[in-house]
Amino acid sequence: MKTLVIVAHPQLANSSTESFLKAAADDENNVMWHELKTPFDISQEQELLKSATRIIFQFPLYWYSAPAILKQWLDEVWNSQLTSSHLLKGRELGIVTTVAHPASAFQPGASQGYTIAEILRPYQALAYAMGMKYLPPLPIYQFAQQSEEERQSLFIHYQQYLTLDKFLHFSDQTQWFIGRLNAKIARELDPLQQAKLEQLLSLLQDQQEELDDLHTSIGWLREKEDD
Amino acid sequence: MKTLVIVAHPQLANSSTESFLKAAADDENNVMWHELKTPFDISQEQELLKSATRIIFQFPLYWYSAPAILKQWLDEVWNSQLTSSHLLKGRELGIVTTVAHPASAFQPGASQGYTIAEILRPYQALAYAMGMKYLPPLPIYQFAQQSEEERQSLFIHYQQYLTLDKFLHFSDQTQWFIGRLNAKIARELDPLQQAKLEQLLSLLQDQQEELDDLHTSIGWLREKEDD
Repeated sequence: MKTLVIVAHPQLANSSTESFLKAAADDENNVMWHELKTPFDISQEQELLKSATRIIFQFPLYWYSAPAILKQWLDEVWNSQLTSSHLLKGRELGIVTTVAHPASAFQPGASQGYTIAEILRPYQALAYAMGMKYLPPLPIYQFAQQSEEERQSLFIHYQQYLTLDKFLHFSDQTQWFIGRLNAKIARELDPLQQAKLEQLLSLLQDQQEELDDLHTSIGWLREKEDD
Repeated sequence: MKTLVIVAHPQLANSSTESFLKAAADDENNVMWHELKTPFDISQEQELLKSATRIIFQFPLYWYSAPAILKQWLDEVWNSQLTSSHLLKGRELGIVTTVAHPASAFQPGASQGYTIAEILRPYQALAYAMGMKYLPPLPIYQFAQQSEEERQSLFIHYQQYLTLDKFLHFSDQTQWFIGRLNAKIARELDPLQQAKLEQLLSLLQDQQEELDDLHTSIGWLREKEDD
């Protein structure tokens, strides 16, 4: 999988959220970080799109939509040459959007009145028209107010959003952690630290095996019930 | 009522739809036709907004949203100075959007997959956040393929959308026609033409009176049923 992150932010240099996310993305192979700047080199932008299997629109939510530069990029780059060739068909479209209000504001009766799913519908319609797979969006609420722990969790969640095939599946998430831990153990020079990490790894693997066994047992019980 | 039409179109001079709509708007008093051009004079744009009780966003629907210039205008002009003063509260927000696909394409399972109401949700959310009254949008489907009769009907419907308090009410629409006809009679110089128009006017008024009587009768019948 190749992921292309289209970053649309009018004041990128001043955004602590974007530099946080960039640090998370820089950690990853197979992730292209692409900050939009006008004027666009249309054929170069199209080549970038063609090289990616997962395309992420990443932007702060202003007035219930992306900043104007993303729309300008869409209107200029997603021209009939790109879209009539069905080149984007089967690729994935994800949305990472930073939001100034809390999650609870996005519901009927609350201050924002509409859900994030409703507000992002035009992007879902775009994915539908292109035959792309629309990923569950990743809204980031009130980054400035997040605790250190929330940010650590976001860091990992964001990396998984960019790189993991099924980023909402718990067992895939565990596999992702096991992979990361293995890489960290290989890089670790201190034998004591390495031993500690290996202990953590085997604990994680044991738990995963136990979970797998439980899933299998539940499967059997369900089958029996169906008899 | 003062209506402000915010026209967002990247190739305005080449748009036959926009010149058609402009002709309809030019006919009207109390309608300000405002074509967006960058850079924006922010305080002047805000003064325009403050002078209007009905604000219309008018644009071709590109990729399920307005062209970038409308978003740029929103992000720059609708700043905290404008919005924190609750100046737009109670005003109306209408959307006139020209669409390349037929109306039937905008439903689940059809080529566009989503309804116009869903696609325009971000503007509805904006109206909600501002305490504005969101008007039923006026989508114009495939203007280029419309017959002369359809265009005449659109011309009137659009004028009513801009100027009529309750543009969806039949009796208000009739009153609107009666007002227009009276104005036309006053301007007419040929006595024969004038007599014809007066005949038409009295016919329209008679029909309206009959309709009003019928409504009253139905009201009575309903009241009796409730006894």
